[in-house]
Amino acid sequence: MNSGGAYAFVTIGIDFGTLSGRAALVDTADGRIAASAVYEYPHGVMDAALPGGTPLGQDWALQHPQDYLDVLMHTIPAVMKSSGADASQVVGIALDVTACTALPVDGDGMPLCMKDAYRGNPHAYVKLWKHHAAQDKANEMTRIAMERGEDWLPAYGGKVSSEWSFPKLWQVLDEAPEIYAAMAGWVEAADWIVWQLCGTWVQNSCAAGYKCFYRKQEGWPSEDYFAAVDERLRHVVREKLSAPVIPIGSRAGSLTPEMAARLGLRPGIAVAAGNVDAHASVPAAGVTKPGQLLAIIGTSTCHMALSRVRHDVPGICGIVEDGILPGCWGYESGQTCVGDHFAWAAERITPAAYHEEAARRGVSVHAYLTELASRLAPGESGLLALDWWNGNRSILADADLTGMLLGMTLRTRPEEIYRALIEATAYGLRMVVENYREHGVAVDEVFALGGISQKNAMAMQIYADVLNMPVRVVDCAQGGALGSAIIAAVAAGVYPTMEDAIAAMAAPVLCAYAPKEAHAAVYDGLFAEYRRLHDTFGRGENDVMKRLKAISRRAAAEENIE
Amino acid sequence: MNSGGAYAFVTIGIDFGTLSGRAALVDTADGRIAASAVYEYPHGVMDAALPGGTPLGQDWALQHPQDYLDVLMHTIPAVMKSSGADASQVVGIALDVTACTALPVDGDGMPLCMKDAYRGNPHAYVKLWKHHAAQDKANEMTRIAMERGEDWLPAYGGKVSSEWSFPKLWQVLDEAPEIYAAMAGWVEAADWIVWQLCGTWVQNSCAAGYKCFYRKQEGWPSEDYFAAVDERLRHVVREKLSAPVIPIGSRAGSLTPEMAARLGLRPGIAVAAGNVDAHASVPAAGVTKPGQLLAIIGTSTCHMALSRVRHDVPGICGIVEDGILPGCWGYESGQTCVGDHFAWAAERITPAAYHEEAARRGVSVHAYLTELASRLAPGESGLLALDWWNGNRSILADADLTGMLLGMTLRTRPEEIYRALIEATAYGLRMVVENYREHGVAVDEVFALGGISQKNAMAMQIYADVLNMPVRVVDCAQGGALGSAIIAAVAAGVYPTMEDAIAAMAAPVLCAYAPKEAHAAVYDGLFAEYRRLHDTFGRGENDVMKRLKAISRRAAAEENIE
Repeated sequence: MNSGGAYAFVTIGIDFGTLSGRAALVDTADGRIAASAVYEYPHGVMDAALPGGTPLGQDWALQHPQDYLDVLMHTIPAVMKSSGADASQVVGIALDVTACTALPVDGDGMPLCMKDAYRGNPHAYVKLWKHHAAQDKANEMTRIAMERGEDWLPAYGGKVSSEWSFPKLWQVLDEAPEIYAAMAGWVEAADWIVWQLCGTWVQNSCAAGYKCFYRKQEGWPSEDYFAAVDERLRHVVREKLSAPVIPIGSRAGSLTPEMAARLGLRPGIAVAAGNVDAHASVPAAGVTKPGQLLAIIGTSTCHMALSRVRHDVPGICGIVEDGILPGCWGYESGQTCVGDHFAWAAERITPAAYHEEAARRGVSVHAYLTELASRLAPGESGLLALDWWNGNRSILADADLTGMLLGMTLRTRPEEIYRALIEATAYGLRMVVENYREHGVAVDEVFALGGISQKNAMAMQIYADVLNMPVRVVDCAQGGALGSAIIAAVAAGVYPTMEDAIAAMAAPVLCAYAPKEAHAAVYDGLFAEYRRLHDTFGRGENDVMKRLKAISRRAAAEENIE
Repeated sequence: MNSGGAYAFVTIGIDFGTLSGRAALVDTADGRIAASAVYEYPHGVMDAALPGGTPLGQDWALQHPQDYLDVLMHTIPAVMKSSGADASQVVGIALDVTACTALPVDGDGMPLCMKDAYRGNPHAYVKLWKHHAAQDKANEMTRIAMERGEDWLPAYGGKVSSEWSFPKLWQVLDEAPEIYAAMAGWVEAADWIVWQLCGTWVQNSCAAGYKCFYRKQEGWPSEDYFAAVDERLRHVVREKLSAPVIPIGSRAGSLTPEMAARLGLRPGIAVAAGNVDAHASVPAAGVTKPGQLLAIIGTSTCHMALSRVRHDVPGICGIVEDGILPGCWGYESGQTCVGDHFAWAAERITPAAYHEEAARRGVSVHAYLTELASRLAPGESGLLALDWWNGNRSILADADLTGMLLGMTLRTRPEEIYRALIEATAYGLRMVVENYREHGVAVDEVFALGGISQKNAMAMQIYADVLNMPVRVVDCAQGGALGSAIIAAVAAGVYPTMEDAIAAMAAPVLCAYAPKEAHAAVYDGLFAEYRRLHDTFGRGENDVMKRLKAISRRAAAEENIE
């Protein structure tokens, strides 16, 4: 690893996930990852109680900001050491974080949870992206935006998510007005870490755009909208989100001497604007052109697409100018349940004999099910599923939809169900792709990243066959960290534009799965069946899933009364 | 057990199942089963090869007639001995067999398979009810009957089953004309065993009616119909099914001296007309009145209902005058997959931890799943299934339908699926009951027999709640044998009518599951959802299940070519 003087310039990208942060030290000449290091958050996800024991409510999920600083302190010296790079070679640093993950701070950027006065107050901590306790607030914000005909709402799939910034902030105001009053800023975690590095608070255009309704041309939603939501929120933007919004690839500031000393880097090097984790993978995958779509396929799937112009595409998560790459409209959509489906099948409905045989062969039960499923021809099982075990994000944006499996006989085997679930997520992706196309956004090339893309060749072949397009799997297990390192190279001026940096530094395509003509023909027929069932159960023709959920909720509530 | 002289008159009923025969010696005074004995068929079900090694085709299922005689020779002496009854006390004997199970014999009733000339010919053996290799013949017979507007077809749900008599006989004619030519009779197994006992060939009205299109008023289908099917079949009835048809409860003849000697009984005692196994349970359950429905709930479910008048009820298996009890129209319908569903769930999709916990507790995995499922409130799981893993017999009569499960989330557990499958069979039963009512056949009381009714209290409570009617579980594990013993008592003249014999001898109700009002209300809502999905997928609105089956068949066929 120690290649020392071999580097001209290197940058460091840090990807802050849900449970840990990962740094990569990258050669700006070719994007090679010279070293990487991971550090797990000491506090992890706090969903039951604060460190002091204060209990948390249902659907809460908090983090401790100290954990993010600990990641910097542990991983940056580690990658410096193992890469053999000299501090003089490090020209920039950039980072990405899950979003919307936000926290209240005072005027100096000090998190309120680190002050003695607020240490015992849950609302003083970081609200993690999957903090879902503001669902009622999100619903109310949607209702009011619809009533008022807010013109930003269509760009967000017509629905405010409880994962986004303002519902979480409104929950703070409502449940802990003293915290709301005490905060000088309600800061995205990515922007807060950047602030710690360079001493300057800026808001990155990605989080501001996708999570806070900020639009490059029109700016923030009006004060009248916020006042309609809650009169106390009328001036929320200028009171709590007052920092300037700057695009991805911009330089937020320079590394402060104090932080440089603690990290073993040189003061004054470039610190880039922060980013959202999934979006940081786009440059890593070499995706720069309109017509390219990147799917990050893991427990869930996130899709990002680019276009020079804005098209109104219904049922997606966000359409943001400069949101992914400067100079482009970034489109984001998602599938809520992909790897989670397969895990459900492997854990909940796969019998002992399969686990035993997998253990005997020394492979995971997923690998064994995949091996059995890969022997099946498309359509052979006679099964068809709707991939809605966790609702549907795109293109129906409906969390109350549920899963469906059809075609079972007494001969139906677990590996057939497993394959049907994989196929269902491929049909779900095709619905997203066709929806983009129908609304003017070209999808000519598909790139894949994420755990499933690297591990499950059968799934990727099915995706290619169902889409009837090649699927290019990018050779990168650390998309976020590499993408951030690319962004750091732009912020540092190593490359004049994102396009140039990406051209030099993006990860190569590991392999391209070409569609098989005969399979694609069968899948065309199966997709037509999927689409019809999708519309029957997802577009109001038969709302049986919602009615069953309502019955289920009543049954559970009555049981609690008994 | 040995109560000897305590008996006035006893009868022996013998129930010939798929794998074994069971005899019960019953006190005609009160229906008490004094002794019972089981004997497994030495040849079992022959579905791969004949005893001599001749291989059998796909979907074949044969039996050896010697096995039936072996049952008599083993079980009758056994019940005589263990009951302590004296031969002088045994006044009659009756039996029931699975149907349509039929064999070719010569003029003396000698099975052709027992003759040296035909021993190696599969078509010389007994074709068991589940011999499905004449499916193409059944389809063709349906098509021709529809074309000709045969007036008997509606009484059979509009469809000829491959399990019935004539498709099987036509297969013999087509594939083994020498066997067809050599046979003097094509005999129901029940009638053949009766023939062995009393030396007389009669055809019982139940099998003739339900399996051979015989109607009490109109007789057999016309020779023109048979000729339209195959000119060689024009005279099939008078050539191969020439014996008189007599109703259930009739005396077919008297026990021959030879058989009496071999069985340890007195010659000259009454031998009753044979019966179909499920139908023999009706008297055992005490079902005699219009408005009563008996459900025999096992791997599949058979329903039998009575009416004084004939109503055209679509989608049932048969409507036969004197078919179940003399003087009544007997209605038969069925659900193809009940216990089989639950077995599929337990075997195919229940993970190791459940099997381990069941083993730890020393209970079956069914019992453990049931225990967990019984803690769920109606509707709580949010799941709804269509119980078509093995197609749908009543009321859709469509073998190409397949299963569906809807409402899954990432939290869905195996016991929830298990309960949803049980509920689905309850909804399926309610469809049958409502279909009877809508077409003029009253269903005021529901009785249950069969393994599941005795073993699974949760299932029976669900049935009561879904039907919103009491379900009366009859205390009888040997419904066929007891029912035959009751029939024997009538044939012997102990009672003048079936009603009288049933009043004295039927098994008592073990327990009646009363519907719970609150549960019934929830199930009303869920049944409405079931009915809508039933109609969507079962009545042509969306034939996705059939299209998937067709795709699956093509995929399997192409794989075989490769």
